[in-house]
Amino acid sequence: MRIKLTLSYDGTAYSGWQIQPNALSVQKTVEQAIFSLTNETVTVTASGRTDAGVHATAQTCHFDTACTIPPEKFYLALNTVLPPDVRAIRSEEVSEDFDARKSAKKKTYKYSFYFDSVENPLKERYATLTDKNLNYREIKKAIKLIKGEHDFKAFSSTGSSVKTTVRTVYEIKMVKNRFGLEFYVTGSGFLYNMVRIIVGALIKVGKGKISLTNIKEMLTTGKRVVSIETLPAKGLTLVGVKYV
Amino acid sequence: MRIKLTLSYDGTAYSGWQIQPNALSVQKTVEQAIFSLTNETVTVTASGRTDAGVHATAQTCHFDTACTIPPEKFYLALNTVLPPDVRAIRSEEVSEDFDARKSAKKKTYKYSFYFDSVENPLKERYATLTDKNLNYREIKKAIKLIKGEHDFKAFSSTGSSVKTTVRTVYEIKMVKNRFGLEFYVTGSGFLYNMVRIIVGALIKVGKGKISLTNIKEMLTTGKRVVSIETLPAKGLTLVGVKYV
Repeated sequence: MRIKLTLSYDGTAYSGWQIQPNALSVQKTVEQAIFSLTNETVTVTASGRTDAGVHATAQTCHFDTACTIPPEKFYLALNTVLPPDVRAIRSEEVSEDFDARKSAKKKTYKYSFYFDSVENPLKERYATLTDKNLNYREIKKAIKLIKGEHDFKAFSSTGSSVKTTVRTVYEIKMVKNRFGLEFYVTGSGFLYNMVRIIVGALIKVGKGKISLTNIKEMLTTGKRVVSIETLPAKGLTLVGVKYV
Repeated sequence: MRIKLTLSYDGTAYSGWQIQPNALSVQKTVEQAIFSLTNETVTVTASGRTDAGVHATAQTCHFDTACTIPPEKFYLALNTVLPPDVRAIRSEEVSEDFDARKSAKKKTYKYSFYFDSVENPLKERYATLTDKNLNYREIKKAIKLIKGEHDFKAFSSTGSSVKTTVRTVYEIKMVKNRFGLEFYVTGSGFLYNMVRIIVGALIKVGKGKISLTNIKEMLTTGKRVVSIETLPAKGLTLVGVKYV
């Protein structure tokens, strides 16, 4: 039986989703929890790897099991053996052709900022401090340029080997209130650090440090013509994966 | 020169404000930071002790120093030596008769709940999970009863030696949205665990497990006639201290 599992986690203590030697990964943590529950050694495949320190409110994954726990109750049983910073929030039986990674159509990441004059210890864990005086009209124009299918090479970090650096960004939603600012970035898939670099570029646009012309040039040439900060992992959360 | 300092802290890692042997206190952390900045051994007096695991967005304190850092810039210098979970957010020179504890007229604590079906790792650090289906009308009635000057003995934990258990609760504000519920409790001062017990009682009223008659009886007799949970420290934050 194949089970689809939805997970929420605070990524602070983890080296990311993927199993790595001598590091605490979310994947290993979940696989160990399944082992203590079922005595089965399983491989858990997620929709995608989240990087070190990145959080999730709805990471999806799948695994195969012969256990007799009713699939729709599996998440509750799993929570009895998971550490508190990882929670299973749903589980269901899926057909054998469902693959949490390959079947994923769209993923949405949220990047969160808060406004303050000094770092706020109660917000620092899940958001990044920023100045609220940004040119939001200019940011909206940059969002329009970035949306769509482009070569996002200039908006990624080197270090991952991919066949193509062309990706589609379906939507970038900016949500602002008096406490902070959030960007919801939805795409088919993302290059290494792509969301953190896109949002970093948007903030620099808002500060007048990157022009719309720069953005266009980077999308066209694939070259990083201006410096862009890769924002800290702590502000990034995987908030949704769509399969249809 | 006496300096009034306003602090924000994530209380998770601390045994509370007050210095205790073999425990990490916020007070000691701040005193050590001041020492590394000024080479002076000072005693820092806060508006009140926050308990182990309790947070603050605006704890106020005072200390005396002979250092030459401009008092209104002191907080910025202090942040260079404080750990990230404690931040100084303001500093100013005050007269010698200002005492952060004795001069405090009102303190406001916030208790935060979030609504969900399963614990949310991204909310668990600063709030407590609760069911959203509560009788809010009944909670409002209980708030009316609790407000004012009463003997709050039934709403406190034993363990502290106080002259009187009579306190004044000036205001209890309930703020609800679709994500969660917050209670802002303002008083002249609070008994040990008093806010966590009052809010615990309000939630039980909302669940129909404590009646308004029970509340009245406890305020009149000082006896805990029904069981009330002392809510977890993590949901509690000191959000304001008033001096005038």
